[in-house]
Amino acid sequence: MKSIQQINYIKTPPSTIYRALTTQEGLSEVWTRNLSVKPDLGAINRFDFDDGYLTEMKVVELQKDTRVVWECIQSDKEWVGTEISFDISAENGVSKVSLSHDKWSEITDFYRWCNYNWAMFLLSLKSYCEKGKGIPFQEREF
Amino acid sequence: MKSIQQINYIKTPPSTIYRALTTQEGLSEVWTRNLSVKPDLGAINRFDFDDGYLTEMKVVELQKDTRVVWECIQSDKEWVGTEISFDISAENGVSKVSLSHDKWSEITDFYRWCNYNWAMFLLSLKSYCEKGKGIPFQEREF
Repeated sequence: MKSIQQINYIKTPPSTIYRALTTQEGLSEVWTRNLSVKPDLGAINRFDFDDGYLTEMKVVELQKDTRVVWECIQSDKEWVGTEISFDISAENGVSKVSLSHDKWSEITDFYRWCNYNWAMFLLSLKSYCEKGKGIPFQEREF
Repeated sequence: MKSIQQINYIKTPPSTIYRALTTQEGLSEVWTRNLSVKPDLGAINRFDFDDGYLTEMKVVELQKDTRVVWECIQSDKEWVGTEISFDISAENGVSKVSLSHDKWSEITDFYRWCNYNWAMFLLSLKSYCEKGKGIPFQEREF
């Protein structure tokens, strides 16, 4: 199985990042304004990117201020069954977010495009956490 | 061996992207302002990111408007011996740039951080090719 692995460093406490990744308010700034999100284990979070289908993520693990794991249960067929985890830690006043998008069947052009776009997600997360303004899907220039 | 693979789509002809990736003018806007670059096969291109060492890339393949390959001969030790290729193609008036950074020994936090930063490179490349203004290292907010 293939995976996408990235890190970004964000000058905020882990709790700010955890809140951004688990709440409707945070993910509407970071990822897409069209969403339905609950900060609960087992919740099915829904994200709309004007693809003609919803991306549904089941929250399969939550460790407060430390770790968030989603299982993709609906989306592009290359995403269904994949898992996305965010691990958050802090050192010397800077937080580290490690993103891992696991269980890809193969490396395709969609994988390559998603790899690029996860970095846009982490850039948006950093901007939102540090400045209060993310770059949601609707404001990105493709 | 591990690799980093990303794609970005850029609304310019392949020749604009190829020029950006092979000239001092282009790479000073896209990557770092402190550089020494020649658009020749076999050239040793030098890039300075204030790391305390230079990153040196030997140009090992050039196919006009289609493909550029660098072999890293000096940099962080995790980079030395790795190869970076850019494949450019066009469809329906949009160019596709596939970046592949190959021959990593293992997936480390530095790999994860570089994966994120290659996306910043591709974002900068897009901005430079489409708008004439890149986001070189000196203008990024880390």
